[in-house]
Amino acid sequence: MRPGIMPAVHTMPTSDSQHLYAVIMAGGGGTRLWPASRRRRAKQFLALGTAGGRSLLGATVHRMRSVCDLDRTLVVAAASQVPDVQAALPELPAANLLAEPCGRNTAPCIGFAAEALFARDPAAVLAVLPADHHIANEAAFADVVTQVLALAGAEDRIVTLGVRPTRPETGYGYIRTSAAPTHGIAYDVEAFVEKPDGVTARRYLESGRYLWNSGMFFFTAARIRAELRRHLPDMTAAFDAIGAACAGGGDATPVVARVYPGLRAISIDYGVMEKADGILVAPAEFGWNDVGSWTALSAISEHDADGNVTVGETLLRRAHDNVVVTESGQLVSVVGADGLVVVVTRDAILVCPKDHAQEVRDVVAELERRGLDRYL
Amino acid sequence: MRPGIMPAVHTMPTSDSQHLYAVIMAGGGGTRLWPASRRRRAKQFLALGTAGGRSLLGATVHRMRSVCDLDRTLVVAAASQVPDVQAALPELPAANLLAEPCGRNTAPCIGFAAEALFARDPAAVLAVLPADHHIANEAAFADVVTQVLALAGAEDRIVTLGVRPTRPETGYGYIRTSAAPTHGIAYDVEAFVEKPDGVTARRYLESGRYLWNSGMFFFTAARIRAELRRHLPDMTAAFDAIGAACAGGGDATPVVARVYPGLRAISIDYGVMEKADGILVAPAEFGWNDVGSWTALSAISEHDADGNVTVGETLLRRAHDNVVVTESGQLVSVVGADGLVVVVTRDAILVCPKDHAQEVRDVVAELERRGLDRYL
Repeated sequence: MRPGIMPAVHTMPTSDSQHLYAVIMAGGGGTRLWPASRRRRAKQFLALGTAGGRSLLGATVHRMRSVCDLDRTLVVAAASQVPDVQAALPELPAANLLAEPCGRNTAPCIGFAAEALFARDPAAVLAVLPADHHIANEAAFADVVTQVLALAGAEDRIVTLGVRPTRPETGYGYIRTSAAPTHGIAYDVEAFVEKPDGVTARRYLESGRYLWNSGMFFFTAARIRAELRRHLPDMTAAFDAIGAACAGGGDATPVVARVYPGLRAISIDYGVMEKADGILVAPAEFGWNDVGSWTALSAISEHDADGNVTVGETLLRRAHDNVVVTESGQLVSVVGADGLVVVVTRDAILVCPKDHAQEVRDVVAELERRGLDRYL
Repeated sequence: MRPGIMPAVHTMPTSDSQHLYAVIMAGGGGTRLWPASRRRRAKQFLALGTAGGRSLLGATVHRMRSVCDLDRTLVVAAASQVPDVQAALPELPAANLLAEPCGRNTAPCIGFAAEALFARDPAAVLAVLPADHHIANEAAFADVVTQVLALAGAEDRIVTLGVRPTRPETGYGYIRTSAAPTHGIAYDVEAFVEKPDGVTARRYLESGRYLWNSGMFFFTAARIRAELRRHLPDMTAAFDAIGAACAGGGDATPVVARVYPGLRAISIDYGVMEKADGILVAPAEFGWNDVGSWTALSAISEHDADGNVTVGETLLRRAHDNVVVTESGQLVSVVGADGLVVVVTRDAILVCPKDHAQEVRDVVAELERRGLDRYL
């Protein structure tokens, strides 16, 4: 690229867009949305704050449709979640559903997808997206994604999206940026930093130089293959074996089944991003929410005049700022209560004040301790 | 009775006890225990604070067993509730279940039972008891009931039980008593007074001369027949017709079906007790509770170390002083919340702070307004 000239991201030729792929990471578990989320029904398969009853996974695929269609959308999920993925995305081509025989966190997941896509299209440019995030402004999202995909392709760099902090959140990793943008909307990444303590988080917030790590990454298949091999050399043989099995449209399932269990579970952030050079980050100005707790649902959903968010049949009286979700068919009536989370599923019910929503994980731990696996 | 001599209530001859009957009024409806209580499943059919899974009705019959057995126990209920009564009391003789074709409050109910029993035994002495109260000390209850039945029989007077007020309750009627007992444990009733306002209730409480009207009455069949005819003369023809139909063990059903709808709905308190002379009242010192709201359940049930009352499968963490009832089979987890009522039934769920428990009736009214009859 010529110095001082912006990449022509909005006028990318059609031929280039044929190399754009979405990789949706749908293998996660998580307990913070219990009892709706379970071992056997992860958050990404729930309709939380989404339109038209779509699951978070379905919404993630749907909002990428202007960038790439289902033929160029890959979903990586646990083998045990394959039926859930098929139910959420009945039109996804079977070859585009990559099943992990066991969870090994995001670095192996992305490596698997990169091998599969590189075998299919050595010029592939990937948008790697978690399946369980909520995006408020889908048009703005598509616009940013189009720009950063073009940037990743044109510069052959890793690009990520960072969310402007609105609070001293200690639950996210942060990205320190250059003082000013260096590539269009994108900044240079100075560092990926791990989840901070409260004091540090406040300093990050006040400095104006930190963004939340959104977990969305953009790169060519060739670039991430190289970075994975450089920073995680112990996995190279496994990735090579998967790539060889995928070549020529082959079925990699037996190879994956053989090599995957031997991979370390490690995140792409820790395994690659914290070590790689030349990463760019673009601000994600489109209303991002990782739906990390029941209170998050309150932030992304429509409220009634009293500040209540309700899903399913409810009857509230003198009740304010509650989140009431019933998917069991039961009518839920909340009377004279404020700031509660009430979640009703077929076999389990949660009632807790919003400011205790993080303690849901304690319930899950207690259920495990008591051996009440049927509720997990 | 000789002046100055107490009636020998504890040495009543066995022959007399053959004339003692329990009349359990099980026809009530009520909405304050929604969603557990419904139009089709009234409070008396629920197991609330009772031992061994017994319904309140079953417990009412059971605690009378030392006074009179099932052969001498009559249950009066709405025709629509007959299956519920049969389920709660499978051993109740069919002839002892009196079905009201429509609800007409307690005066017609007691009149119906008095006619039926007088036809069976002109010397009958009746204990008339609501089916939906909780009694903590059953031995003390049986002792008091034995005494007041003997008094009602020996004196041919109406005797009632009054509960010593513990708070300025505005939800109950009150009974003003003589300054001292006049007949063993019993006082003369100076007046039945209707539900007071808060200021008046406080005055009653402080005076020491008022008891709560428990709704439990004791009299001979002959006495109440005469009092009903005297104070409710418009019902005399109907009672006469029912009595004639019951004579000789006849089936009164057709006559009841014909005359009952024409009776006024009026309570025994308003129709007879406020007007009759010579009524006695004995203090009910046996832990009485009318289970009039979900908070009442808290008062009559065992608490855990954190003050929680739980029924069904629950998991509470950092939760205090809650009432959590699940009869749906669903696990209910309450986290970080205090003083809540959480009631889970098959098709409806209530969440409200204890101090809003009286507003449950507003929910029921709202369900009616919305035409959601299936939840009523």
